[in-house]
Amino acid sequence: MKRTCLFVLGVYLLSSCRAEEGLNFPTYDGKDRVVSLTEKNLKQVLKKYDLLCLYYHEPVSADKVAQKQFQLKEIVLELVAQILEHKDIGFAMVDSKKEAKLAKKLGFTEEGSLYILKGDRTIEFDGEFAADVLVEFLLDLIEDPVEVISNKLEVQAFERIEDHIKLIGFFKSEDSEYYKAFEEAAEHFQPYIKFFATFDKGVAKKLSLKMNEVDFYEPFMDEPVAIPDKPYTEEELVEFVKEHQRPTLRRLRPEDMFETWEDDLNGIHIVAFAEKSDPDGYEFLEILKQVARDNTDNPDLSIVWIDPDDFPLLVAYWEKTFKIDLFKPQIGVVNVTDADSVWMDIPDDDDLPTAEELEDWIEDVLSGKINTEDDDIEDDDEDDDDDDDDDNSDEEDTDDSDEDDE
Amino acid sequence: MKRTCLFVLGVYLLSSCRAEEGLNFPTYDGKDRVVSLTEKNLKQVLKKYDLLCLYYHEPVSADKVAQKQFQLKEIVLELVAQILEHKDIGFAMVDSKKEAKLAKKLGFTEEGSLYILKGDRTIEFDGEFAADVLVEFLLDLIEDPVEVISNKLEVQAFERIEDHIKLIGFFKSEDSEYYKAFEEAAEHFQPYIKFFATFDKGVAKKLSLKMNEVDFYEPFMDEPVAIPDKPYTEEELVEFVKEHQRPTLRRLRPEDMFETWEDDLNGIHIVAFAEKSDPDGYEFLEILKQVARDNTDNPDLSIVWIDPDDFPLLVAYWEKTFKIDLFKPQIGVVNVTDADSVWMDIPDDDDLPTAEELEDWIEDVLSGKINTEDDDIEDDDEDDDDDDDDDNSDEEDTDDSDEDDE
Repeated sequence: MKRTCLFVLGVYLLSSCRAEEGLNFPTYDGKDRVVSLTEKNLKQVLKKYDLLCLYYHEPVSADKVAQKQFQLKEIVLELVAQILEHKDIGFAMVDSKKEAKLAKKLGFTEEGSLYILKGDRTIEFDGEFAADVLVEFLLDLIEDPVEVISNKLEVQAFERIEDHIKLIGFFKSEDSEYYKAFEEAAEHFQPYIKFFATFDKGVAKKLSLKMNEVDFYEPFMDEPVAIPDKPYTEEELVEFVKEHQRPTLRRLRPEDMFETWEDDLNGIHIVAFAEKSDPDGYEFLEILKQVARDNTDNPDLSIVWIDPDDFPLLVAYWEKTFKIDLFKPQIGVVNVTDADSVWMDIPDDDDLPTAEELEDWIEDVLSGKINTEDDDIEDDDEDDDDDDDDDNSDEEDTDDSDEDDE
Repeated sequence: MKRTCLFVLGVYLLSSCRAEEGLNFPTYDGKDRVVSLTEKNLKQVLKKYDLLCLYYHEPVSADKVAQKQFQLKEIVLELVAQILEHKDIGFAMVDSKKEAKLAKKLGFTEEGSLYILKGDRTIEFDGEFAADVLVEFLLDLIEDPVEVISNKLEVQAFERIEDHIKLIGFFKSEDSEYYKAFEEAAEHFQPYIKFFATFDKGVAKKLSLKMNEVDFYEPFMDEPVAIPDKPYTEEELVEFVKEHQRPTLRRLRPEDMFETWEDDLNGIHIVAFAEKSDPDGYEFLEILKQVARDNTDNPDLSIVWIDPDDFPLLVAYWEKTFKIDLFKPQIGVVNVTDADSVWMDIPDDDDLPTAEELEDWIEDVLSGKINTEDDDIEDDDEDDDDDDDDDNSDEEDTDDSDEDDE
């Protein structure tokens, strides 16, 4: 049975009956590559691989649904292990009951998590558990932790990155002790936060960097913050980044979406949907950026921007859960405990709110004047202004719940 | 058995044991939504849906591998049907033998293809057969075929789109007969080619558009071509786009990757790998664009740019098949019949070739001086300059072949 299920690996298929070669998607070949980690084989496994990807799970129960959930994760890991076979990455399972001692030793706390061991670091993967996302994450992890910027075009590339936190430092050379500290600090945040460096005076001048200075760029902000008191130790850099990690506006990314979602402020998120490749979405995002820039010093404000293009499988779910139309830009407040939400009234996507109107709305949210509870009485008779969707809500509720609760 | 397989749908999993709500990935609920299309139920099914997504397949054989391949496609379609349940999209199978008459009537020719019926149009989906790609494709198909640009920020959004073919027209109003012809033409290419329109004089002036004029933008070119002899009929627009559809430089996209790959020139593709989010990749892409702009009038030149970030599952496969390192930019010639390839020697990613060097290399490819056959004698003893990969090629050959050939 397990074999059968493993063979029938969904979603990624070989396109059969094509005459052309060069675009063959991998299918799982049925070989076992994911091992069970025990105290006994730990040393041997660690020695064998540069990177070790560990799925820390509760004991597989007799419950069929739980069993199937477990098998699914196993299949994803097997496929990823097959794809990355020649990259020196090991894959293993750690049973939280059978291997309680080992788990404690490794510092694993959250069952159902994926931990990656790299040298003496442990990195938690808290993103979409899908083969493509996981492969990209692991490939990013085996790249150099610091990207070197050495010419004008590369500065342009650096400047174009606006939706992540990024840091850049100017150092004498690769042998500089301060560069080494920077590199060590980078490893703490790889692959979530990008670290860049330059050894080129021209590049440094263009970016207004002094020798041994590191600049920190919050997402969507034009001006960086120079980290004070250069030169820095590894610890000082790590501490600064940790302190400034929650930006005013951040993009939800498949590779750390759950971590971002868990990082709510008082149980809520201000969520903005905007499709960047769409003119309306682009316009709305530009307005949002303006608001973020004007309010970057407000520690209570953190907006999660979601580009629906990054999450095609969630679009219909969000439209049903939040009762909104995602063909146009939206901004709302979401209670992360029950996904209850209220959304700003944007009657026409040709007439988006101005930055000032958005700021007023956000102020009302932060003050509690707008909140997810106020409309709950009306919620039952569904008389809100959503004209986008038919309401078959009773039917829809069954979609996930069977696997969620049992 | 079928039930079991359907239930065990791979890759997209519900993240269990989380306290937060709002990011629940759909899992297949086991309900049958994909029907078998017959001559008898055709009319009824057509009437029920705005859009009909049809998988045209050969009869399911007794062969187990073929059966499983078929079940996999069925599962993907079932999941997509579930996700898009409330969007009025129907899903059906058409058996090429049992329903030969129906298939002929519908104009289906290629078994294994996915056809979408929308009004009196038939659109072929020739992309990655994965749930997320398919969902996005179908959502794009039910949007308006023309995007209206109405202000400065939206012009900016329009200008930033550089990796697709795009058209923009200036019309008096939505009621203009010329706008209507433009809209009809747009439907022929939706969702592969984006059509924009404006009714705003300021926007038209900014884009140097005259009344009823339509400009055609080749990907990565700064200057558009004004389609001659305005105003145009629907047919004239369609014909112009068809004639200019193969650009000098194009990005490989999951939604039409196989179609692009089939559109080779004399059995080969010039393929460039460059990760846009990486400074080296960005730099290389800028050089490529320069080459494309300088050679846009050469009908024999069409470069396929692949951003490895768009295809995480194929990166390891490409590295093995082409014997290259995809952590750095690459350009080469690929024979699409057997995936045999030769690659430009780029010894150091800090010292990328100049536009001139690239042009010389491309000239050698087009003249046949550089080709995929010349190195074949040496190929066996693996003495080429790739230092990136261990060579276990005998092992690797087994990865896909079992499913490919049987």
